[in-house]
Amino acid sequence: MSLIDIEQGRPRDVVLMGRVTLDFNPNEIHRTLDKVKTFSMYLGGSPGNMAVGISRLGKKVGFIGCVSDDRFGDFALNYFRSCGIDTSRMVRAKNGERMGLTFTEIKSPAESSILMYRDRAADLMLTPQDVSEEYIASAKILIVSGTALAASPSREACLLAARYARKHGTRIIFDIDYRPYTWQSREEISIYYSLLAGMSDVIIGSRDEVNLTELLPEDAAEPADCLLADRYIANGSKIVIIKHGKKGSLAYTADHRAYRVSSFKVRLMKSFGGGDAYGSAFVYGLLEGWDVPRALQHATAHAAMVVASHSCSDAMQTAEEIAAFIREHADEKVITEIDWEEAL
Amino acid sequence: MSLIDIEQGRPRDVVLMGRVTLDFNPNEIHRTLDKVKTFSMYLGGSPGNMAVGISRLGKKVGFIGCVSDDRFGDFALNYFRSCGIDTSRMVRAKNGERMGLTFTEIKSPAESSILMYRDRAADLMLTPQDVSEEYIASAKILIVSGTALAASPSREACLLAARYARKHGTRIIFDIDYRPYTWQSREEISIYYSLLAGMSDVIIGSRDEVNLTELLPEDAAEPADCLLADRYIANGSKIVIIKHGKKGSLAYTADHRAYRVSSFKVRLMKSFGGGDAYGSAFVYGLLEGWDVPRALQHATAHAAMVVASHSCSDAMQTAEEIAAFIREHADEKVITEIDWEEAL
Amino acid sequence: MSLIDIEQGRPRDVVLMGRVTLDFNPNEIHRTLDKVKTFSMYLGGSPGNMAVGISRLGKKVGFIGCVSDDRFGDFALNYFRSCGIDTSRMVRAKNGERMGLTFTEIKSPAESSILMYRDRAADLMLTPQDVSEEYIASAKILIVSGTALAASPSREACLLAARYARKHGTRIIFDIDYRPYTWQSREEISIYYSLLAGMSDVIIGSRDEVNLTELLPEDAAEPADCLLADRYIANGSKIVIIKHGKKGSLAYTADHRAYRVSSFKVRLMKSFGGGDAYGSAFVYGLLEGWDVPRALQHATAHAAMVVASHSCSDAMQTAEEIAAFIREHADEKVITEIDWEEAL
Amino acid sequence: MSLIDIEQGRPRDVVLMGRVTLDFNPNEIHRTLDKVKTFSMYLGGSPGNMAVGISRLGKKVGFIGCVSDDRFGDFALNYFRSCGIDTSRMVRAKNGERMGLTFTEIKSPAESSILMYRDRAADLMLTPQDVSEEYIASAKILIVSGTALAASPSREACLLAARYARKHGTRIIFDIDYRPYTWQSREEISIYYSLLAGMSDVIIGSRDEVNLTELLPEDAAEPADCLLADRYIANGSKIVIIKHGKKGSLAYTADHRAYRVSSFKVRLMKSFGGGDAYGSAFVYGLLEGWDVPRALQHATAHAAMVVASHSCSDAMQTAEEIAAFIREHADEKVITEIDWEEAL
Repeated sequence: MSLIDIEQGRPRDVVLMGRVTLDFNPNEIHRTLDKVKTFSMYLGGSPGNMAVGISRLGKKVGFIGCVSDDRFGDFALNYFRSCGIDTSRMVRAKNGERMGLTFTEIKSPAESSILMYRDRAADLMLTPQDVSEEYIASAKILIVSGTALAASPSREACLLAARYARKHGTRIIFDIDYRPYTWQSREEISIYYSLLAGMSDVIIGSRDEVNLTELLPEDAAEPADCLLADRYIANGSKIVIIKHGKKGSLAYTADHRAYRVSSFKVRLMKSFGGGDAYGSAFVYGLLEGWDVPRALQHATAHAAMVVASHSCSDAMQTAEEIAAFIREHADEKVITEIDWEEAL
Repeated sequence: MSLIDIEQGRPRDVVLMGRVTLDFNPNEIHRTLDKVKTFSMYLGGSPGNMAVGISRLGKKVGFIGCVSDDRFGDFALNYFRSCGIDTSRMVRAKNGERMGLTFTEIKSPAESSILMYRDRAADLMLTPQDVSEEYIASAKILIVSGTALAASPSREACLLAARYARKHGTRIIFDIDYRPYTWQSREEISIYYSLLAGMSDVIIGSRDEVNLTELLPEDAAEPADCLLADRYIANGSKIVIIKHGKKGSLAYTADHRAYRVSSFKVRLMKSFGGGDAYGSAFVYGLLEGWDVPRALQHATAHAAMVVASHSCSDAMQTAEEIAAFIREHADEKVITEIDWEEAL
Repeated sequence: MSLIDIEQGRPRDVVLMGRVTLDFNPNEIHRTLDKVKTFSMYLGGSPGNMAVGISRLGKKVGFIGCVSDDRFGDFALNYFRSCGIDTSRMVRAKNGERMGLTFTEIKSPAESSILMYRDRAADLMLTPQDVSEEYIASAKILIVSGTALAASPSREACLLAARYARKHGTRIIFDIDYRPYTWQSREEISIYYSLLAGMSDVIIGSRDEVNLTELLPEDAAEPADCLLADRYIANGSKIVIIKHGKKGSLAYTADHRAYRVSSFKVRLMKSFGGGDAYGSAFVYGLLEGWDVPRALQHATAHAAMVVASHSCSDAMQTAEEIAAFIREHADEKVITEIDWEEAL
Repeated sequence: MSLIDIEQGRPRDVVLMGRVTLDFNPNEIHRTLDKVKTFSMYLGGSPGNMAVGISRLGKKVGFIGCVSDDRFGDFALNYFRSCGIDTSRMVRAKNGERMGLTFTEIKSPAESSILMYRDRAADLMLTPQDVSEEYIASAKILIVSGTALAASPSREACLLAARYARKHGTRIIFDIDYRPYTWQSREEISIYYSLLAGMSDVIIGSRDEVNLTELLPEDAAEPADCLLADRYIANGSKIVIIKHGKKGSLAYTADHRAYRVSSFKVRLMKSFGGGDAYGSAFVYGLLEGWDVPRALQHATAHAAMVVASHSCSDAMQTAEEIAAFIREHADEKVITEIDWEEAL
């Protein structure tokens, strides 16, 4: 019996909610942003990237989101459609709100930073009225990005979608995905993150993001990851993945098994985009009915492949490509089962 | 064993959260507001009135709220202190926000309406940072008014307080107390009302308010009250009271008993204020360890006494006065145990 | 020949623009506001009071303003109509904005302070589209209250009205009437006050208000009043009145005459409302074609009569009553012609 | 004697006020924006471009403006400095406001459109407190862009700067430069445009922009250009330039002479940027003391050179380059003196 009981007969594998934005990545890299002359435009936003990733892996994907009513909104919808993502539930912002933008500074392979345009971003204009109970009920999995909780009415759209998912047995994956925009206080972050976490089957976040969720100090290392996982699992979650950047990540499951996940060795092009690739392949593994270690192996492989390329969405791989990558790196052991209390 | 397991050793009986406002009641009554020449000023706001009511009944009451930094804020704090309410957790609005105001139109004994000033009301400026975990933990009961969920940051302050209450075994009473101000959509109302209802031991609301909570049509009579009570009780609530205006109210308890509550016969002065009196006396009964029918009898008696007077807060009664009233009306049977499925 | 050339053939004597609000004056006086139990409601707002005052003096008055779409808005319109003021250009706020409120604290006969509700006040919602060029053109005099310049769109409504007035030869009286609400900076105040002053035939303000207009330090006594009057007169103004509270006021005219105005001796009831009475009677004098000293005498008489009573609007007097008052106080010399450079 | 009496002894030739933004021009042109893959980033915004243009022509230029407190703000300041523009009066936005962005769609050589990001744009955050009277007084000419009047506090900063300019004899050039963002109504536009126009020595705008200024219907052709010029000149302006797109423009001067200005024949790269080039060279001519026809000839030459290139700011030319261009096109007669009443 699987850890997560997925309703197999449903027409759609995954529905995602959250931001779809535009990434402007510098063509002249390894310099600060004010020295850049030209940028390449890609579809972006963590859940947008994951939608593309999961779709490229061959799954049926739908998205509930809001884009601008301008050429950039056209771009996002066209890109989604070209990937085979269902856009029937995508809406347009009604009051001239623009797409969120992310200008990426790639100062060196290891140092990236971003300059975001998120004032009145179109994605945050999604309303609870835009959320179809039937559509949520038709999906096996709902993925909610924590950034969508950062402001109303997108916040309420997500809370309502999660309520519908719980009612209809749609599994919820909460990708904490913290961005320091539009939140009013650390307390506010914790309130909404912990509400969503409390409704989720799978929780994925960095240790920093888990600290935010639990209203712990920013760099708290205590309580240990396994104790936090205990809390979530006691509360009903089945899988808890806590990431620690370059040091790898830890995965805890409701059958009381724990795994350490390391990175494959690749030449880094940029230090972002890996998380979305990781999430996409992990969800793919869950949908395939794989055991957790195998899903994690594909996740970390996919992450390695994407950070070695210029974009996030465009660089998403097929299942065959990931499999080939893993075969090529067969000598690297990246997944290790560990004791529950063992730290990274 | 009691339905609701109250932690007896705690220093404070009740902590309330929500709005404290000013009521301006017309001295020239039975006319529309534009014909009024003079008004009397009282402390108001449903949770403010309940705080006064419970305190007058002899219980130890604290309030977590925000008032204006002006003479009217002084008035509210002074009034609370004169009632023996602990104001150590009351804060002042920092950006010139004013107290909410309610001008009451008493057109006839049965027809009242109100004109509210709630733009940037000071009470909605309460932040989650103003909520002390220790203070919540020191109380037997936390009462949250639904109006405090109508806007941020007061909304988050309440959600955090409820989380603390759950963590520390402080019982939660959710008084839905709907006011049509600052809410953005019916979906938004339902999302936050149902979050709070899902965390509460006692839920008190009119049928209209329950419809809002459940995202049902405004005047839905289906599903029946008892079926909605079933849902809340299945979810962990112990007592559910659904009010039907002049027709009386129905109370459902987790031990599967149901009661019909009628009104005592009094000469009506105005058609508002009864709810706060009802709630105050019911909470008093719970704290006294009374059984539900006895608590309900005192609740409806207190309500009758208050609607026969000019104000809400000033008209709150002592326990002796309520007892005397009940003795005088000994021939009126207002509480009847009914079958679970029986309608009003 | 008159100082101010008024177009005599026009159907309306005066059109006013600015706030109409509600005054709540305490019935229990000589105490702080938090000790008050009952309030009397009056129509208020400086231009609202002046409209009432000029109308009671027998002139044809119209008002361009915005009131709330509720019972209090009804009250204001009904009151205006009962005074014979034309309300055909009054509009209702469209988005639930409420009437501004002023709660007056009458701590002692000489010490008054106010607590204002001006967040999203209905009066500030007047738009330039609500201003009829034809209506302005049909009036002899346009009176603009500086408070109406405090926020958009009321600010633009006034600027447009002044432009129409200049185009059609309607004389402009600028009553600076400063209130410390909704303004963003001293620079902003100065910008708009000086724009209006530059378009006006008559400027009336306290020395403090003139300092704000000229971006001078708050309590600047230099340059002397007469030098500031020189500036305005050089710029086209005909009469400049600078008030100094209890010390009286100074009036400068374009024919290079200056007058000192003292107060009649009355028993003070409250320290506000005098300014509106003063302005009303002065405008009445201008319309009657009186010379400036006579108009000033009536102005200061009217002021004295109103500060001796409980309200502003309700206390406005008829021309006969003012004349009688002046006869009774015939032994008090309140108007003195002085040298231009003479200080108060 | 010159039409416009410029104070020659001043240390700075021109101070500009208004927006500095970033232009993102597509590298793949002649397609809609959603088909573009890469963009080149340039400094933009009409007054920003003009500052660069005038500086490249060898004049001493200063700018009073607000940029973002991020890498893009660095870019703007660095670019200005590299052009020799004085940035000592440039300020940084204090609350995280971002640079305005303009994504240009070059659908065909003749069809351009733009997608602007102007929500809470940093340039509109300039406050009147940021405007130094001394700095304005030290300049020969102040150029105000109408877009800076679109919202507070930038609006008030410009009104104050214009007041200082009038006080100190700094000549004012008003470039109407209309952008349909943040304005609330046509009336609002007209109010502020006509205030600035009434204070200006030189007014430059398209016929559409003049219609907005005069509150005329959008495509009004009546009253004729010359009648509108009469109004402005009667009101104190010395030069009025009304542009008619590809048909050329008309210039009217206070000595009652009128000129028709045609375009030089060039191969169009894009249909924007010409206006800023035109303005820059015209101001240069005024500063050089040239007669109006010669200044206009250089203006239209500069415009032709810039529309033939990819950017606006980067494409600004030197005086020698413009002179060379005019020599090469010596056979094209672009400036014709016409009768005052003659239409285009």
